[in-house]
Amino acid sequence: MKKHPTGSRLPADPHVEDQVAGNGLLHRRTLLTAGAAGIVGTGLGVGLTGAAAEPLTDQPWDLEVGDNTPAYQVPSKRTAYIVRTLSNPKFEPRSSIARTPHHLLEGSTTPNGLHFTINHTGIPDIDPARHRLLIHGLVKRPLVFTLDSLLRYPLTSRPAFMECGGNSAPFFSPTPIQANLQALHGLSSCAEWTGVKLSLLLDECGVDPKAKWFVAEGADAPHLMRSVPLMKGLDDAMIALYQNGEPLMPGNGFPMRLVLPGFEGNLNIKFLRRIKLVPGPAMSFWESQVYTEPMPKGPSYNFTFINEVKSFITRPSPGLNMKEPGVYEISGIAYSGRGKIAKVMVSADGGKSWGEAALQGPVMTKAFTRFRMPWRWSGGPAILQSRAWDDQGNFQPTRAAFVAERGQLDSEPAVTAFRNHHFNAVTSWGIASNGAVRHVYA
Amino acid sequence: MKKHPTGSRLPADPHVEDQVAGNGLLHRRTLLTAGAAGIVGTGLGVGLTGAAAEPLTDQPWDLEVGDNTPAYQVPSKRTAYIVRTLSNPKFEPRSSIARTPHHLLEGSTTPNGLHFTINHTGIPDIDPARHRLLIHGLVKRPLVFTLDSLLRYPLTSRPAFMECGGNSAPFFSPTPIQANLQALHGLSSCAEWTGVKLSLLLDECGVDPKAKWFVAEGADAPHLMRSVPLMKGLDDAMIALYQNGEPLMPGNGFPMRLVLPGFEGNLNIKFLRRIKLVPGPAMSFWESQVYTEPMPKGPSYNFTFINEVKSFITRPSPGLNMKEPGVYEISGIAYSGRGKIAKVMVSADGGKSWGEAALQGPVMTKAFTRFRMPWRWSGGPAILQSRAWDDQGNFQPTRAAFVAERGQLDSEPAVTAFRNHHFNAVTSWGIASNGAVRHVYA
Repeated sequence: MKKHPTGSRLPADPHVEDQVAGNGLLHRRTLLTAGAAGIVGTGLGVGLTGAAAEPLTDQPWDLEVGDNTPAYQVPSKRTAYIVRTLSNPKFEPRSSIARTPHHLLEGSTTPNGLHFTINHTGIPDIDPARHRLLIHGLVKRPLVFTLDSLLRYPLTSRPAFMECGGNSAPFFSPTPIQANLQALHGLSSCAEWTGVKLSLLLDECGVDPKAKWFVAEGADAPHLMRSVPLMKGLDDAMIALYQNGEPLMPGNGFPMRLVLPGFEGNLNIKFLRRIKLVPGPAMSFWESQVYTEPMPKGPSYNFTFINEVKSFITRPSPGLNMKEPGVYEISGIAYSGRGKIAKVMVSADGGKSWGEAALQGPVMTKAFTRFRMPWRWSGGPAILQSRAWDDQGNFQPTRAAFVAERGQLDSEPAVTAFRNHHFNAVTSWGIASNGAVRHVYA
Repeated sequence: MKKHPTGSRLPADPHVEDQVAGNGLLHRRTLLTAGAAGIVGTGLGVGLTGAAAEPLTDQPWDLEVGDNTPAYQVPSKRTAYIVRTLSNPKFEPRSSIARTPHHLLEGSTTPNGLHFTINHTGIPDIDPARHRLLIHGLVKRPLVFTLDSLLRYPLTSRPAFMECGGNSAPFFSPTPIQANLQALHGLSSCAEWTGVKLSLLLDECGVDPKAKWFVAEGADAPHLMRSVPLMKGLDDAMIALYQNGEPLMPGNGFPMRLVLPGFEGNLNIKFLRRIKLVPGPAMSFWESQVYTEPMPKGPSYNFTFINEVKSFITRPSPGLNMKEPGVYEISGIAYSGRGKIAKVMVSADGGKSWGEAALQGPVMTKAFTRFRMPWRWSGGPAILQSRAWDDQGNFQPTRAAFVAERGQLDSEPAVTAFRNHHFNAVTSWGIASNGAVRHVYA
């Protein structure tokens, strides 16, 4: 072992690292199997030699009595910067958007405090004892459900990601917008939802064969209403009552919401009060005017239900600058509205060469999958990219291919604006020799 | 379909229900497969007929603009009763214990706000930038790690339950203590932990073959210190940095804790600042005096590391009284410190007959597994029990068998007292004809 100038160690044998792609990408198992291969040390060497630290230095917090225990705990004040960015902090009369800070999170669960949310007229203060869910329309028996009655049905739990159709809208800009990951990809989150399968309640009501769609409506002021094919209602749709183990958060639909795994966020109607079975779509304001995709030539896409396969690197990412050359873990999130993530490839040279990332199990359908890849940063320029495949054979397009089909905006929009939807192409983070990480197109 | 007097419907054909054990226990798939069997309606019939509810009645919350969106969201004020009970709300100079309200939660994740915590001198306010982890003792290279340096190692994510050795201590009482589930079993929680495997850091330091144990020490005022066999450190031990996706909660060890999946809570040292490799256990105050189990005759157990297989029914449970006869879902939690849950059996007649519950997948090792079982309550007396098996062949003892080996207290203690540890026997909830649910011994 020779000493690195900054005090960390580099392994003497370059074969230890098992480079799999250009610009320092290492095999995904390199560090995990170093010990098993009989090599002393992992070769990472980012720990400081410890002799000087004995005896341990006391700090104020280990010499004094600490803080009281609250009934509902919240994060340390030391992490007060780990919050959702708000589009409308003064609560002016327009929509309010709160984004998940993925660059500061890890694992495959979005904690409830930080799940993204969009509300068009604020968050309703619903009394769960007075809230009702009506299922009616083309059914044999219209039924009304209370929260208590829903709790008597068999419940089911599953992780599912939720993504706004407008997530990643800044990537429609003709030049790369400099913003952190939260601003770029923060309208996507993943939670364990627990509730009643909608198919069970539809069975209880008795579906009329003429019913082909259902209209779901929320109990907030705009009564947000979307049409959904009945086939989805009979498949994996759920009336969710719990989010990561506790009742739904107010911004995520308390006391109950529709969860349509893999379908764009606004279809997962929050504050759900009504499901009406109908022969065809209602063509509501929200589906005919708001959540559509304008095409470069001709009419807009309508009813784009599914969030296609997608991935992005969370660390490093724009603004999380590198300090010194050495080995790092590249970490990111992948998901697909069509199934399980099958593979994530990572590049450190802007897509010239690729290595396969490790996937954190259990890989679950229509849920976040964390991917990880070791990388030795030489201190030179690099462009990091990730590209995901799902188990249905779908994969992320390059940005060039995506733009060729879907177009881009004519001029640079504000970061928070979205005028198009469902961007799922490969995105790129450029590393400069000084360690700065910026958003680039590559 | 005939009408039940209270307005809900009972199926005409009793075979629909597929009773599998005495006193109304139904097959775990009964309601889920009713539709598939061509039967109209699920037979549950707890929805109210809906005709009278059309058109929907407006409520104040769907006629007005709602609340602002906060940067970090917290539960609805309507669920303000869903909090941890505190043993020391005035923060007097003694330990502070906060218990998870399992009877009001669902799924297999404990949300971060409600994870149980015990602190002997309050919760330290640790500056993560100044916190250090030292690994030293019988190693070739003692190393010091900062939070930033740990983030460069390969991270791993996994669910793991955490349970205090003193959880369920009220069951050592000679008569059943009347308290809710939170007071009885609330010192157990489960989260997705993300961090660095300790084995990787030990490999980096180089383990001296003379090392057989390690001592882990926290950076809070009591410097809580426990000895752990090195074998566990080389197996699935983790230095956890994230809890359900965000940095650890202050009460759960921010900025880093040792996670020893399946080992009793206090061994999972919070605010971890030191791991020292040693030839034998340190016999610290905490392991020789506090966390031991007095036996009926003779000396105490010492070093009871593993939380054995366990389960309890969360709904219904004491205090969650039943309102009317009919079909309900029995829901509960099972886990084992030795592996995966293989099977949970449920009884409605105090253990005379048993039916197998459905397990919510994915079933993960050393993590909470939610089980569910449909039950038609006749309106007569019932005693509900659950009994879990793990994939290593271990199963829960009856309370009688447990007490024969481990003894019980001579007199009834306060609910919050614990003078013995590691209770994992079958527990029983008695349902009276008026629907009241009480803790019973059966």
